[in-house]
Amino acid sequence: MSFTSQKLVIVGTGLLGASIGLAVKARGLAKHVVGCGRTETSCEAALRVGAIDAAGIDLASAAAEADFIVIAVPPFAVISYLESLSAFSLNGAVLTDVASTKRLICARAAQLWPSPRPFIGSHPMAGSEKSGAAHAVESLFVNRVCFVEDSEELAPEALQRVRSFWAALGSDVIPIDPAVHDEMLAISSHVPHIVAAAVAAMAHRHGITGRYVGGGFRDTTRIAEGNPEMWAEICLSNSTAITKHLEGVGEWLEEFRRALEAKDSARLTALLTEGRDGRRAIFPS
Amino acid sequence: MSFTSQKLVIVGTGLLGASIGLAVKARGLAKHVVGCGRTETSCEAALRVGAIDAAGIDLASAAAEADFIVIAVPPFAVISYLESLSAFSLNGAVLTDVASTKRLICARAAQLWPSPRPFIGSHPMAGSEKSGAAHAVESLFVNRVCFVEDSEELAPEALQRVRSFWAALGSDVIPIDPAVHDEMLAISSHVPHIVAAAVAAMAHRHGITGRYVGGGFRDTTRIAEGNPEMWAEICLSNSTAITKHLEGVGEWLEEFRRALEAKDSARLTALLTEGRDGRRAIFPS
Repeated sequence: MSFTSQKLVIVGTGLLGASIGLAVKARGLAKHVVGCGRTETSCEAALRVGAIDAAGIDLASAAAEADFIVIAVPPFAVISYLESLSAFSLNGAVLTDVASTKRLICARAAQLWPSPRPFIGSHPMAGSEKSGAAHAVESLFVNRVCFVEDSEELAPEALQRVRSFWAALGSDVIPIDPAVHDEMLAISSHVPHIVAAAVAAMAHRHGITGRYVGGGFRDTTRIAEGNPEMWAEICLSNSTAITKHLEGVGEWLEEFRRALEAKDSARLTALLTEGRDGRRAIFPS
Repeated sequence: MSFTSQKLVIVGTGLLGASIGLAVKARGLAKHVVGCGRTETSCEAALRVGAIDAAGIDLASAAAEADFIVIAVPPFAVISYLESLSAFSLNGAVLTDVASTKRLICARAAQLWPSPRPFIGSHPMAGSEKSGAAHAVESLFVNRVCFVEDSEELAPEALQRVRSFWAALGSDVIPIDPAVHDEMLAISSHVPHIVAAAVAAMAHRHGITGRYVGGGFRDTTRIAEGNPEMWAEICLSNSTAITKHLEGVGEWLEEFRRALEAKDSARLTALLTEGRDGRRAIFPS
Protein backbone atom coordinates (compact mmCIF):
# COMPACT_ATOMS: atom_id res chain seq x y z
CA MET A 1 0.00 0.00 0.00
CA SER A 2 1.75 3.17 -1.15
CA PHE A 3 1.60 6.49 0.65
CA THR A 4 1.25 9.90 -0.98
CA SER A 5 0.25 13.27 0.33
CA GLN A 6 -0.58 16.63 -1.25
CA LYS A 7 0.30 18.53 1.85
CA LEU A 8 2.04 16.90 4.79
CA VAL A 9 2.38 18.91 7.98
CA ILE A 10 5.03 18.18 10.61
CA VAL A 11 4.21 19.76 13.95
CA GLY A 12 7.49 20.08 15.85
CA THR A 13 10.68 20.05 13.86
CA GLY A 14 13.26 18.63 16.27
CA LEU A 15 15.36 15.57 15.55
CA LEU A 16 12.41 13.29 14.79
CA GLY A 17 10.23 15.83 12.96
CA ALA A 18 13.08 17.00 10.76
CA SER A 19 14.17 13.41 10.07
CA ILE A 20 10.61 12.65 8.95
CA GLY A 21 10.76 15.69 6.64
CA LEU A 22 14.06 14.57 5.12
CA ALA A 23 12.75 11.01 4.66
CA VAL A 24 9.45 12.15 3.10
CA LYS A 25 11.21 14.50 0.69
CA ALA A 26 13.91 11.99 -0.26
CA ARG A 27 11.19 9.48 -1.18
CA GLY A 28 8.92 12.00 -2.90
CA LEU A 29 6.02 11.01 -0.68
CA ALA A 30 4.47 14.47 -0.41
CA LYS A 31 3.99 17.34 -2.83
CA HIS A 32 4.42 19.90 -0.10
CA VAL A 33 5.97 19.51 3.36
CA VAL A 34 5.17 22.19 5.91
CA GLY A 35 6.78 22.49 9.32
CA CYS A 36 4.74 23.98 12.13
CA GLY A 37 6.26 25.28 15.33
CA ARG A 38 5.46 27.54 18.25
CA THR A 39 7.66 30.38 16.98
CA GLU A 40 8.96 31.46 13.58
CA THR A 41 12.53 30.71 14.62
CA SER A 42 11.75 27.20 15.85
CA CYS A 43 11.46 25.84 12.29
CA GLU A 44 14.56 27.61 10.95
CA ALA A 45 16.95 24.72 11.52
CA ALA A 46 14.55 22.35 9.72
CA LEU A 47 14.33 24.74 6.76
CA ARG A 48 18.13 25.04 6.72
CA VAL A 49 18.70 21.26 6.48
CA GLY A 50 15.99 20.98 3.81
CA ALA A 51 13.60 18.93 5.93
CA ILE A 52 10.59 21.12 5.12
CA ASP A 53 9.53 23.30 2.17
CA ALA A 54 7.91 25.98 4.29
CA ALA A 55 7.30 26.88 7.91
CA GLY A 56 4.28 28.27 9.67
CA ILE A 57 3.18 29.09 13.17
CA ASP A 58 -0.58 29.13 12.56
CA LEU A 59 -1.73 25.58 13.27
CA ALA A 60 -5.26 26.27 11.96
CA SER A 61 -4.20 27.35 8.49
CA ALA A 62 -1.58 24.60 8.25
CA ALA A 63 -4.12 21.94 9.22
CA ALA A 64 -6.89 23.30 6.99
CA GLU A 65 -5.35 22.08 3.77
CA ALA A 66 -3.25 19.21 5.09
CA ASP A 67 -4.12 15.62 4.35
CA PHE A 68 -1.56 14.13 6.77
CA ILE A 69 -0.26 15.62 10.01
CA VAL A 70 2.58 14.17 12.09
CA ILE A 71 2.92 15.61 15.59
CA ALA A 72 6.56 15.19 16.60
CA VAL A 73 6.71 16.64 20.12
CA PRO A 74 6.84 15.19 23.68
CA PRO A 75 3.72 13.41 25.06
CA PHE A 76 1.92 16.22 26.87
CA ALA A 77 2.57 18.61 24.00
CA VAL A 78 0.99 16.01 21.67
CA ILE A 79 -2.13 16.07 23.86
CA SER A 80 -2.15 19.85 23.79
CA TYR A 81 -1.88 19.90 19.98
CA LEU A 82 -4.65 17.29 19.66
CA GLU A 83 -6.90 19.50 21.78
CA SER A 84 -6.20 22.45 19.47
CA LEU A 85 -6.67 20.37 16.32
CA SER A 86 -9.96 18.93 17.54
CA ALA A 87 -11.48 22.43 17.27
CA PHE A 88 -10.72 22.60 13.53
CA SER A 89 -12.41 21.07 10.55
CA LEU A 90 -9.77 18.60 9.36
CA ASN A 91 -11.36 17.74 5.98
CA GLY A 92 -10.36 14.10 6.14
CA ALA A 93 -6.77 14.67 7.20
CA VAL A 94 -5.20 11.77 9.09
CA LEU A 95 -3.13 12.53 12.19
CA THR A 96 -0.40 10.63 13.96
CA ASP A 97 2.45 11.30 16.39
CA VAL A 98 5.84 9.88 17.37
CA ALA A 99 5.78 10.07 21.17
CA SER A 100 7.38 7.35 23.30
CA THR A 101 4.22 6.73 25.31
CA LYS A 102 0.81 5.95 23.86
CA ARG A 103 -1.82 5.22 26.53
CA LEU A 104 -2.67 8.77 27.65
CA ILE A 105 -2.38 10.23 24.15
CA CYS A 106 -4.65 7.65 22.49
CA ALA A 107 -7.17 7.87 25.34
CA ARG A 108 -7.33 11.65 24.99
CA ALA A 109 -7.77 11.35 21.21
CA ALA A 110 -10.68 8.95 21.78
CA GLN A 111 -12.31 11.56 24.05
CA LEU A 112 -11.74 14.42 21.61
CA TRP A 113 -13.14 12.80 18.51
CA PRO A 114 -16.31 10.77 18.16
CA SER A 115 -15.80 7.75 15.94
CA PRO A 116 -14.26 7.74 13.39
CA ARG A 117 -11.32 9.54 14.86
CA PRO A 118 -8.62 10.97 12.60
CA PHE A 119 -5.73 10.33 15.00
CA ILE A 120 -3.85 7.02 15.22
CA GLY A 121 -0.92 6.93 17.65
CA SER A 122 2.55 5.92 16.49
CA HIS A 123 5.89 5.34 18.15
CA PRO A 124 8.85 4.81 15.83
CA MET A 125 11.70 3.13 17.75
CA ALA A 126 14.20 5.57 16.37
CA GLY A 127 15.98 8.49 17.88
CA SER A 128 19.24 9.53 19.32
CA GLU A 129 20.70 11.07 22.44
CA LYS A 130 21.14 14.15 20.20
CA SER A 131 18.39 16.74 19.83
CA GLY A 132 17.40 19.19 17.13
CA ALA A 133 16.92 19.36 13.38
CA ALA A 134 20.66 19.83 12.87
CA HIS A 135 21.10 16.15 13.78
CA ALA A 136 18.26 14.93 11.54
CA VAL A 137 18.97 11.82 9.47
CA GLU A 138 17.00 10.83 6.37
CA SER A 139 17.40 7.11 7.06
CA LEU A 140 16.42 7.31 10.74
CA PHE A 141 13.35 5.07 10.34
CA VAL A 142 14.72 2.50 7.92
CA ASN A 143 14.57 -1.04 9.31
CA ARG A 144 13.29 0.26 12.65
CA VAL A 145 10.23 -0.98 14.44
CA CYS A 146 7.35 1.50 14.43
CA PHE A 147 4.56 0.69 16.86
CA VAL A 148 1.15 1.79 15.59
CA GLU A 149 -1.92 1.88 17.80
CA ASP A 150 -4.26 -1.01 17.16
CA SER A 151 -7.89 -1.35 18.11
CA GLU A 152 -11.06 -2.58 16.44
CA GLU A 153 -12.64 0.80 17.13
CA LEU A 154 -10.29 2.64 14.79
CA ALA A 155 -11.26 3.63 11.26
CA PRO A 156 -9.64 1.15 8.86
CA GLU A 157 -8.81 3.90 6.34
CA ALA A 158 -6.93 6.06 8.87
CA LEU A 159 -5.19 2.99 10.29
CA GLN A 160 -4.09 1.91 6.84
CA ARG A 161 -2.87 5.38 5.96
CA VAL A 162 -0.70 5.65 9.11
CA ARG A 163 0.70 2.15 8.61
CA SER A 164 1.53 2.83 4.98
CA PHE A 165 3.23 6.10 5.96
CA TRP A 166 5.69 4.33 8.26
CA ALA A 167 6.15 1.47 5.82
CA ALA A 168 7.02 4.04 3.13
CA LEU A 169 9.75 5.40 5.45
CA GLY A 170 11.20 1.90 5.67
CA SER A 171 9.90 0.95 9.12
CA ASP A 172 8.65 -2.41 10.30
CA VAL A 173 5.10 -1.64 11.47
CA ILE A 174 3.94 -3.46 14.62
CA PRO A 175 0.27 -3.00 15.60
CA ILE A 176 -0.07 -2.77 19.38
CA ASP A 177 -2.53 -1.91 22.13
CA PRO A 178 -1.45 1.41 23.73
CA ALA A 179 -1.47 0.05 27.30
CA VAL A 180 0.57 -3.02 26.31
CA HIS A 181 2.99 -0.70 24.49
CA ASP A 182 3.51 1.51 27.53
CA GLU A 183 3.98 -1.44 29.88
CA MET A 184 6.61 -2.94 27.56
CA LEU A 185 8.43 0.33 26.91
CA ALA A 186 8.60 1.09 30.65
CA ILE A 187 11.04 -1.79 31.16
CA SER A 188 12.71 -1.82 27.73
CA SER A 189 13.29 1.93 27.37
CA HIS A 190 12.10 4.25 30.14
CA VAL A 191 13.60 2.49 33.17
CA PRO A 192 16.93 1.87 31.35
CA HIS A 193 17.02 5.61 30.62
CA ILE A 194 16.40 6.53 34.27
CA VAL A 195 18.98 4.02 35.47
CA ALA A 196 21.58 5.35 33.00
CA ALA A 197 20.93 8.86 34.32
CA ALA A 198 21.34 7.62 37.91
CA VAL A 199 24.71 6.00 37.14
CA ALA A 200 26.00 9.03 35.21
CA ALA A 201 24.83 11.42 37.94
CA MET A 202 26.44 9.43 40.76
CA ALA A 203 29.69 8.91 38.84
CA HIS A 204 29.95 12.64 38.21
CA ARG A 205 29.17 13.44 41.85
CA HIS A 206 32.12 11.24 42.81
CA GLY A 207 34.52 12.95 40.45
CA ILE A 208 34.83 10.25 37.78
CA THR A 209 36.43 11.56 34.58
CA GLY A 210 36.40 10.15 31.07
CA ARG A 211 40.08 9.31 31.12
CA TYR A 212 39.56 6.57 33.68
CA VAL A 213 36.39 4.87 32.51
CA GLY A 214 36.03 1.95 30.16
CA GLY A 215 33.73 1.15 27.28
CA GLY A 216 31.23 -0.45 29.65
CA PHE A 217 30.51 2.81 31.45
CA ARG A 218 30.44 4.67 28.15
CA ASP A 219 27.79 2.37 26.69
CA THR A 220 25.75 1.97 29.87
CA THR A 221 25.32 5.73 30.30
CA ARG A 222 25.03 6.86 26.66
CA ILE A 223 21.28 7.42 26.70
CA ALA A 224 21.56 9.61 29.81
CA GLU A 225 22.42 12.41 27.36
CA GLY A 226 18.81 12.53 26.14
CA ASN A 227 16.83 15.74 26.52
CA PRO A 228 15.76 16.05 30.21
CA GLU A 229 12.52 17.96 29.56
CA MET A 230 11.38 15.44 26.95
CA TRP A 231 12.24 12.49 29.18
CA ALA A 232 10.47 14.05 32.17
CA GLU A 233 7.32 14.17 30.00
CA ILE A 234 7.81 10.59 28.87
CA CYS A 235 8.16 9.45 32.47
CA LEU A 236 5.16 11.46 33.70
CA SER A 237 3.00 10.12 30.89
CA ASN A 238 3.83 6.51 31.82
CA SER A 239 4.24 6.85 35.57
CA THR A 240 2.29 3.77 36.68
CA ALA A 241 4.24 1.28 34.59
CA ILE A 242 7.56 3.03 35.23
CA THR A 243 6.99 3.07 38.98
CA LYS A 244 6.24 -0.65 38.93
CA HIS A 245 9.39 -1.49 36.96
CA LEU A 246 11.61 0.92 38.91
CA GLU A 247 10.48 -0.95 42.01
CA GLY A 248 11.27 -4.26 40.32
CA VAL A 249 14.79 -3.15 39.41
CA GLY A 250 15.19 -1.66 42.90
CA GLU A 251 14.22 -4.97 44.52
CA TRP A 252 16.70 -6.86 42.32
CA LEU A 253 19.45 -4.43 43.30
CA GLU A 254 18.49 -4.68 46.98
CA GLU A 255 18.66 -8.46 46.77
CA PHE A 256 22.10 -8.14 45.20
CA ARG A 257 23.20 -5.79 47.98
CA ARG A 258 22.00 -8.20 50.66
CA ALA A 259 23.82 -11.11 48.98
CA LEU A 260 26.97 -8.97 48.89
CA GLU A 261 26.61 -8.16 52.58
CA ALA A 262 26.13 -11.87 53.36
CA LYS A 263 29.14 -12.73 51.13
CA ASP A 264 26.77 -15.14 49.38
CA SER A 265 28.84 -15.95 46.32
CA ALA A 266 26.32 -18.46 44.95
CA ARG A 267 23.46 -15.95 45.14
CA LEU A 268 25.55 -13.19 43.54
CA THR A 269 26.51 -15.55 40.74
CA ALA A 270 22.87 -16.59 40.28
CA LEU A 271 21.71 -12.96 40.02
CA LEU A 272 24.48 -12.06 37.55
CA THR A 273 23.67 -15.22 35.59
CA GLU A 274 20.05 -14.10 35.37
CA GLY A 275 21.30 -10.81 33.90
CA ARG A 276 23.64 -12.50 31.44
CA ASP A 277 21.10 -15.08 30.32
CA GLY A 278 18.41 -12.42 30.04
CA ARG A 279 20.64 -10.29 27.80
CA ARG A 280 21.52 -13.35 25.71
CA ALA A 281 17.87 -14.32 25.33
CA ILE A 282 17.00 -10.80 24.18
CA PHE A 283 19.95 -10.60 21.78
CA PRO A 284 20.76 -14.16 20.67
CA SER A 285 24.13 -14.19 18.92
CA MET B 1 62.19 2.11 29.52
CA SER B 2 61.99 -1.00 27.40
CA PHE B 3 60.72 -4.35 28.60
CA THR B 4 62.21 -7.73 27.79
CA SER B 5 61.86 -11.13 29.37
CA GLN B 6 63.65 -14.44 28.97
CA LYS B 7 60.68 -16.40 30.23
CA LEU B 8 57.32 -14.81 30.77
CA VAL B 9 54.63 -16.86 32.49
CA ILE B 10 50.93 -16.15 32.11
CA VAL B 11 48.85 -17.77 34.83
CA GLY B 12 45.30 -18.11 33.50
CA THR B 13 44.83 -18.02 29.75
CA GLY B 14 41.33 -16.61 29.30
CA LEU B 15 40.53 -13.52 27.24
CA LEU B 16 42.98 -11.26 29.08
CA GLY B 17 45.78 -13.79 29.59
CA ALA B 18 45.70 -14.93 25.97
CA SER B 19 45.51 -11.32 24.73
CA ILE B 20 48.64 -10.56 26.79
CA GLY B 21 50.35 -13.58 25.19
CA LEU B 22 49.44 -12.42 21.68
CA ALA B 23 50.59 -8.86 22.44
CA VAL B 24 53.89 -10.00 23.99
CA LYS B 25 54.67 -12.32 21.08
CA ALA B 26 53.66 -9.78 18.42
CA ARG B 27 56.08 -7.27 19.98
CA GLY B 28 58.88 -9.78 20.60
CA LEU B 29 58.99 -8.82 24.29
CA ALA B 30 59.76 -12.29 25.61
CA LYS B 31 61.99 -15.13 24.43
CA HIS B 32 59.60 -17.74 25.80
CA VAL B 33 55.94 -17.37 26.78
CA VAL B 34 54.50 -20.09 28.97
CA GLY B 35 50.84 -20.44 29.89
CA CYS B 36 49.97 -21.97 33.21
CA GLY B 37 46.51 -23.28 34.06
CA ARG B 38 44.79 -25.58 36.50
CA THR B 39 44.39 -28.39 33.97
CA GLU B 40 46.21 -29.41 30.80
CA THR B 41 43.15 -28.67 28.70
CA SER B 42 42.66 -25.18 30.11
CA CYS B 43 45.58 -23.78 28.08
CA GLU B 44 44.68 -25.53 24.85
CA ALA B 45 42.71 -22.64 23.37
CA ALA B 46 45.60 -20.24 24.13
CA LEU B 47 48.06 -22.61 22.40
CA ARG B 48 45.70 -22.89 19.45
CA VAL B 49 45.50 -19.12 18.87
CA GLY B 50 49.28 -18.81 19.27
CA ALA B 51 49.12 -16.80 22.50
CA ILE B 52 51.68 -19.00 24.30
CA ASP B 53 54.65 -21.14 23.23
CA ALA B 54 54.04 -23.85 25.79
CA ALA B 55 51.62 -24.81 28.54
CA GLY B 56 52.20 -26.23 31.99
CA ILE B 57 50.19 -27.10 35.04
CA ASP B 58 53.04 -27.15 37.58
CA LEU B 59 53.19 -23.61 38.95
CA ALA B 60 56.43 -24.31 40.86
CA SER B 61 58.44 -25.33 37.81
CA ALA B 62 56.97 -22.56 35.65
CA ALA B 63 57.80 -19.94 38.27
CA ALA B 64 61.29 -21.31 39.02
CA GLU B 65 62.81 -20.01 35.79
CA ALA B 66 60.43 -17.15 35.02
CA ASP B 67 61.56 -13.55 35.28
CA PHE B 68 58.04 -12.09 34.82
CA ILE B 69 54.73 -13.60 35.84
CA VAL B 70 51.31 -12.17 34.98
CA ILE B 71 48.39 -13.64 36.92
CA ALA B 72 45.29 -13.23 34.75
CA VAL B 73 42.48 -14.71 36.84
CA PRO B 74 39.63 -13.30 39.00
CA PRO B 75 40.52 -11.55 42.30
CA PHE B 76 40.28 -14.41 44.82
CA ALA B 77 42.10 -16.74 42.45
CA VAL B 78 44.88 -14.14 42.24
CA ILE B 79 45.18 -14.24 46.04
CA SER B 80 45.27 -18.03 45.98
CA TYR B 81 48.06 -18.03 43.36
CA LEU B 82 50.02 -15.41 45.33
CA GLU B 83 49.82 -17.66 48.40
CA SER B 84 51.19 -20.58 46.36
CA LEU B 85 53.90 -18.48 44.74
CA SER B 86 55.04 -17.06 48.09
CA ALA B 87 56.24 -20.56 49.05
CA PHE B 88 58.66 -20.70 46.10
CA SER B 89 62.03 -19.13 45.54
CA LEU B 90 61.27 -16.65 42.78
CA ASN B 91 64.87 -15.72 41.89
CA GLY B 92 64.09 -12.08 41.26
CA ALA B 93 61.01 -12.65 39.13
CA VAL B 94 58.54 -9.77 39.14
CA LEU B 95 54.82 -10.56 39.48
CA THR B 96 51.71 -8.67 38.51
CA ASP B 97 48.04 -9.36 37.85
CA VAL B 98 45.12 -7.92 35.85
CA ALA B 99 42.21 -8.16 38.31
CA SER B 100 39.53 -5.45 38.45
CA THR B 101 39.95 -4.88 42.19
CA LYS B 102 43.23 -4.12 43.90
CA ARG B 103 42.83 -3.42 47.62
CA LEU B 104 42.53 -6.99 48.97
CA ILE B 105 45.06 -8.40 46.50
CA CYS B 106 47.76 -5.82 47.24
CA ALA B 107 47.15 -6.07 50.99
CA ARG B 108 47.55 -9.85 50.85
CA ALA B 109 50.76 -9.52 48.81
CA ALA B 110 52.14 -7.14 51.43
CA GLN B 111 51.44 -9.78 54.12
CA LEU B 112 52.99 -12.61 52.10
CA TRP B 113 56.28 -10.96 51.24
CA PRO B 114 58.56 -8.97 53.51
CA SER B 115 59.91 -5.91 51.75
CA PRO B 116 60.90 -5.85 48.92
CA ARG B 117 57.92 -7.66 47.55
CA PRO B 118 57.97 -9.04 44.02
CA PHE B 119 54.27 -8.40 43.30
CA ILE B 120 52.90 -5.08 42.02
CA GLY B 121 49.14 -5.02 41.32
CA SER B 122 47.85 -3.97 37.88
CA HIS B 123 44.44 -3.39 36.35
CA PRO B 124 44.37 -2.84 32.61
CA MET B 125 41.07 -1.16 31.64
CA ALA B 126 40.57 -3.56 28.79
CA GLY B 127 38.27 -6.47 28.34
CA SER B 128 35.12 -7.53 26.70
CA GLU B 129 31.79 -9.08 27.50
CA LYS B 130 33.26 -12.13 25.72
CA SER B 131 35.30 -14.74 27.59
CA GLY B 132 38.03 -17.16 26.64
CA ALA B 133 41.26 -17.30 24.64
CA ALA B 134 39.30 -17.75 21.41
CA HIS B 135 38.29 -14.07 21.68
CA ALA B 136 41.81 -12.85 22.49
CA VAL B 137 42.94 -9.71 20.65
CA GLU B 138 46.58 -8.70 20.24
CA SER B 139 45.77 -4.97 20.39
CA LEU B 140 43.55 -5.22 23.49
CA PHE B 141 45.79 -2.99 25.65
CA VAL B 142 46.76 -0.38 23.08
CA ASN B 143 45.75 3.14 24.12
CA ARG B 144 43.98 1.80 27.19
CA VAL B 145 44.54 3.00 30.73
CA CYS B 146 46.38 0.50 32.91
CA PHE B 147 46.25 1.26 36.64
CA VAL B 148 49.42 0.16 38.45
CA GLU B 149 49.64 0.02 42.23
CA ASP B 150 51.59 2.91 43.65
CA SER B 151 53.15 3.22 47.08
CA GLU B 152 56.45 4.45 48.50
CA GLU B 153 56.94 1.06 50.13
CA LEU B 154 57.29 -0.75 46.80
CA ALA B 155 60.64 -1.69 45.31
CA PRO B 156 61.44 0.83 42.55
CA GLU B 157 62.88 -1.89 40.28
CA ALA B 158 59.75 -4.06 40.41
CA LEU B 159 57.53 -1.01 39.98
CA GLN B 160 59.51 0.13 36.96
CA ARG B 161 59.42 -3.33 35.43
CA VAL B 162 55.64 -3.63 35.74
CA ARG B 163 55.09 -0.12 34.38
CA SER B 164 57.41 -0.74 31.43
CA PHE B 165 55.58 -4.02 30.70
CA TRP B 166 52.23 -2.27 30.26
CA ALA B 167 53.79 0.63 28.39
CA ALA B 168 55.34 -1.91 25.99
CA LEU B 169 51.84 -3.29 25.33
CA GLY B 170 50.74 0.23 24.40
CA SER B 171 48.88 1.14 27.59
CA ASP B 172 48.75 4.47 29.35
CA VAL B 173 50.07 3.66 32.83
CA ILE B 174 48.35 5.43 35.74
CA PRO B 175 49.93 4.95 39.19
CA ILE B 176 47.22 4.66 41.85
CA ASP B 177 46.64 3.76 45.49
CA PRO B 178 44.73 0.41 45.62
CA ALA B 179 41.97 1.73 47.91
CA VAL B 180 41.44 4.82 45.75
CA HIS B 181 41.33 2.55 42.70
CA ASP B 182 38.65 0.31 44.19
CA GLU B 183 36.51 3.22 45.36
CA MET B 184 36.64 4.77 41.88
CA LEU B 185 36.01 1.53 40.01
CA ALA B 186 33.01 0.71 42.22
CA ILE B 187 31.06 3.60 40.70
CA SER B 188 32.66 3.68 37.23
CA SER B 189 32.61 -0.06 36.51
CA HIS B 190 31.21 -2.42 39.15
CA VAL B 191 27.91 -0.68 39.93
CA PRO B 192 27.21 -0.03 36.20
CA HIS B 193 27.74 -3.75 35.62
CA ILE B 194 25.32 -4.73 38.40
CA VAL B 195 22.73 -2.21 37.18
CA ALA B 196 23.01 -3.49 33.60
CA ALA B 197 22.42 -7.03 34.90
CA ALA B 198 19.36 -5.84 36.86
CA VAL B 199 17.83 -4.18 33.78
CA ALA B 200 18.53 -7.18 31.52
CA ALA B 201 17.16 -9.60 34.12
CA MET B 202 13.95 -7.65 34.68
CA ALA B 203 13.37 -7.08 30.96
CA HIS B 204 13.73 -10.80 30.30
CA ARG B 205 11.40 -11.65 33.21
CA HIS B 206 8.78 -9.43 31.54
CA GLY B 207 9.11 -11.11 28.17
CA ILE B 208 10.97 -8.38 26.29
CA THR B 209 12.45 -9.62 23.01
CA GLY B 210 15.17 -8.16 20.84
CA ARG B 211 12.81 -7.29 18.02
CA TYR B 212 11.11 -4.62 20.07
CA VAL B 213 14.01 -2.91 21.82
CA GLY B 214 16.04 0.03 20.65
CA GLY B 215 19.72 0.87 20.61
CA GLY B 216 19.46 2.43 24.08
CA PHE B 217 18.54 -0.86 25.74
CA ARG B 218 21.15 -2.69 23.68
CA ASP B 219 23.95 -0.39 24.84
CA THR B 220 22.78 -0.05 28.43
CA THR B 221 22.74 -3.81 28.98
CA ARG B 222 25.75 -4.88 26.88
CA ILE B 223 28.09 -5.48 29.81
CA ALA B 224 25.53 -7.69 31.53
CA GLU B 225 26.89 -10.46 29.29
CA GLY B 226 30.12 -10.60 31.29
CA ASN B 227 31.10 -13.82 33.04
CA PRO B 228 28.93 -14.18 36.21
CA GLU B 229 31.48 -16.11 38.27
CA MET B 230 34.21 -13.57 37.54
CA TRP B 231 31.92 -10.65 38.32
CA ALA B 232 30.74 -12.24 41.57
CA GLU B 233 34.41 -12.37 42.64
CA ILE B 234 34.97 -8.77 41.59
CA CYS B 235 31.94 -7.67 43.61
CA LEU B 236 32.90 -9.72 46.68
CA SER B 237 36.44 -8.35 46.60
CA ASN B 238 35.16 -4.75 46.61
CA SER B 239 32.01 -5.14 48.64
CA THR B 240 32.34 -2.09 50.90
CA ALA B 241 32.73 0.45 48.09
CA ILE B 242 30.14 -1.29 45.90
CA THR B 243 27.59 -1.39 48.73
CA LYS B 244 28.08 2.33 49.32
CA HIS B 245 27.60 3.21 45.65
CA LEU B 246 24.71 0.78 45.14
CA GLU B 247 23.01 2.60 48.00
CA GLY B 248 23.79 5.95 46.36
CA VAL B 249 22.28 4.88 43.05
CA GLY B 250 19.33 3.34 44.91
CA GLU B 251 18.68 6.61 46.74
CA TRP B 252 18.80 8.56 43.46
CA LEU B 253 16.30 6.12 41.91
CA GLU B 254 14.07 6.33 44.98
CA GLU B 255 14.10 10.12 44.77
CA PHE B 256 13.14 9.83 41.11
CA ARG B 257 10.32 7.45 41.98
CA ARG B 258 8.97 9.82 44.64
CA ALA B 259 9.10 12.77 42.20
CA LEU B 260 7.19 10.65 39.69
CA GLU B 261 4.57 9.79 42.30
CA ALA B 262 4.24 13.49 43.19
CA LYS B 263 4.07 14.39 39.47
CA ASP B 264 6.90 16.82 40.23
CA SER B 265 7.96 17.69 36.70
CA ALA B 266 10.61 20.19 37.82
CA ARG B 267 12.28 17.66 40.13
CA LEU B 268 12.21 14.92 37.45
CA THR B 269 13.78 17.33 34.95
CA ALA B 270 16.41 18.36 37.51
CA LEU B 271 17.36 14.73 38.18
CA LEU B 272 17.52 13.88 34.48
CA THR B 273 19.54 17.05 33.89
CA GLU B 274 22.01 15.92 36.56
CA GLY B 275 22.38 12.67 34.62
CA ARG B 276 22.80 14.40 31.27
CA ASP B 277 25.25 16.97 32.56
CA GLY B 278 27.19 14.30 34.44
CA ARG B 279 27.53 12.23 31.26
CA ARG B 280 28.58 15.30 29.29
CA ALA B 281 31.17 16.28 31.91
CA ILE B 282 32.64 12.75 31.82
CA PHE B 283 32.63 12.62 28.01
CA PRO B 284 32.95 16.18 26.72
CA SER B 285 32.20 16.25 23.02
